[in-house]
Parts: sequence; structure tokens; C-alpha cells
Amino acid sequence: MIILGIDPGLRTTGFGLIEKHGSKLRYIASGTIKTGLEGALPPRLKIILDGVREVVTTYGPQCAAIEKVFVNVNPQSTLLLGQARGAAISALVGFDLDVAEYSPTQIKQSVVGSGKAAKPQVQDMVARLLKLPGLPGSDAADALGVAICHAHTYDTLALLNVLSPQKATLRMKNGRLV
Amino acid sequence: MIILGIDPGLRTTGFGLIEKHGSKLRYIASGTIKTGLEGALPPRLKIILDGVREVVTTYGPQCAAIEKVFVNVNPQSTLLLGQARGAAISALVGFDLDVAEYSPTQIKQSVVGSGKAAKPQVQDMVARLLKLPGLPGSDAADALGVAICHAHTYDTLALLNVLSPQKATLRMKNGRLV
Repeated sequence: MIILGIDPGLRTTGFGLIEKHGSKLRYIASGTIKTGLEGALPPRLKIILDGVREVVTTYGPQCAAIEKVFVNVNPQSTLLLGQARGAAISALVGFDLDVAEYSPTQIKQSVVGSGKAAKPQVQDMVARLLKLPGLPGSDAADALGVAICHAHTYDTLALLNVLSPQKATLRMKNGRLV
Repeated sequence: MIILGIDPGLRTTGFGLIEKHGSKLRYIASGTIKTGLEGALPPRLKIILDGVREVVTTYGPQCAAIEKVFVNVNPQSTLLLGQARGAAISALVGFDLDVAEYSPTQIKQSVVGSGKAAKPQVQDMVARLLKLPGLPGSDAADALGVAICHAHTYDTLALLNVLSPQKATLRMKNGRLV
């Protein structure tokens, strides 16, 4: 299964693709989509939309995961970030891909083992887990981190009956395993 | 020329289509795209994306205009509204439509003649300008208002060399007509 991870942003949207074979993860590709610093919003959103679409067409992921974003101290920045994230999600759902959402804390917890890990720790662990020859860039590392987080979570969700009820081996009732 | 106006929102996105023949405006259609009150964000954005796409496919507008949104007192609402607007713009730029943006004040100024007009005044003037048999709903009226604002602005922009430089009859330099 190929998983696409997205770290959304208006200036820079990171993407990362990994392949999951059982519990093994393999790096496929990663990079960034840049919209430049200026210009009207609609053409910048089109760059994000077209960029994510091209990534999906090129690598054919079966599912996607995107980082949850949080409100900025500057409300105008929050609004712009929201619109960039909306464009990235639009590209994914336009291909009928399921899109999972994870908070930065969930991603750090899943990749590094601590929800309070610093950025360099995430980059380092992403490089180790995927056996990369060097450290990935910050945006690409975040995107690969979301993909890894989804890969880890996917097994748990499958066991817990959420993804394929007919194959579930564990069952939950009132939030507890039964 | 057919103009599509969009009033973006996560729960309700309004749309309105008008035809412009010289200075005459004719009503074509209007309505709302509703995503319901609950559920994960990506499927709700898909409803907006698919809904706006269907409107474009059905009515074939040559250009689009969308209301600028402003930051809410609740930053989380700002983030959600931004993502909904991002999905609506994605649907439009996905068809390579030019998307103009107008603030609520610009729209009220253009439709009612006062940037401080109240909602019912906008609904009333939209109904008069488009010779509607009754008042349009609030979201549809806002969407038709954006389309009317773009129709009014379009002539000015065309004269001012912005839309088709080769046909310009007025020229601007340093923000003044020359």
C-alpha cells in the first residue's frame, strides 16, 4: 500500500510517499510544492491543487494523510493557511482518496515516541525509519512523518474494526476492547 | 458572458449565476451547497468541491467571483471557513476559470450603493436588479451580489486595460487615468 503524506502551507506544501509492506516501510519520494511569496490567492491555490494532483497521478497512492494545522497568532495567516489546506485536500478528495488527519502531537508521538519532540528529532527519525542516506528537508520530513504516522495507525485501526469490519480481529464496545 | 458568484462557507456555500449583455444583467440560477453540520472535514470539502464543479459544468460560466471572508472571533471557525473557501476556489481554478475576489464592503457598495448596507437591503437590490419575482435566500443573494459586483467592475477593468490590454480605451499610470 502506498501512502501519501501532506504537510500543507500556502508558500510551501510538503509531500512524502512511502510504501507499507506489513510492518515494513519503504521510501518512495518526497518534495515540496512552492507557490512563491506574492500574487493573487486563486492562482497560488491552483499551483497547490495542480501540484498535489500531479503527485497523485505520478505515484498512485491508495490513501492519504494530512497534518492538522493550528491557528496562528495572526488571524490573517490562519485564514491563508486554511485555504491552502483546503486546496490540498480538494486535490486528494477529487481522486476519491480517503484522507486521514493527524495533529503535530500525534505525528511526533508516532514517529519519535514523544509528542513534544523538536523538528530535528522528527527529521532524524524519519531518515532512520526510511533508511534515507541523509536528512530530508523540514517540509518533506513533516510530510513523510504524517505518512509514517498513518502507516502505524492503519494497523491499529484495521484491528479495531474501523477500516474493514468484516476482517476485524479485535472489537470495541463503549471505547474498550471486548 | 455568464458570471458565477460564490459566497463560501463550510455549512452553506451560496452560488449565483447571471448573464451580462452590455450593461444589462439577466438572472440564470442560484442556490446553496450544504454539507450538513457534522462529519470529518475532507468529505465535507468534497461536497463543496463536487457541488461547485457541478454548477460550472451545468451552466458553463466564463468567469467567477468569490466573496472575501474575514477572520472570525473564533480562530477555529476562521480556519474551517478558510478551508471551505479553498475548496470552492479549487473547483473554479480546476476549470481554469479566472476568479476575482471582492470584499463584503465592495459588494454592498456595488449592489446597494453603500458599503454599510444591511443584508435585507442587499437581498432587495439583488431582486430588483435581476427582476426576480421574490427575495432570494440570504446565501444565494450574497452569491448573486458578488456576481453583480463583478459585472459592474468588469466594464471598468476592461476600460482600464487590465482584462484585455490590446482593446483598452483608457490607460492608467501611477494609479491615475492618463
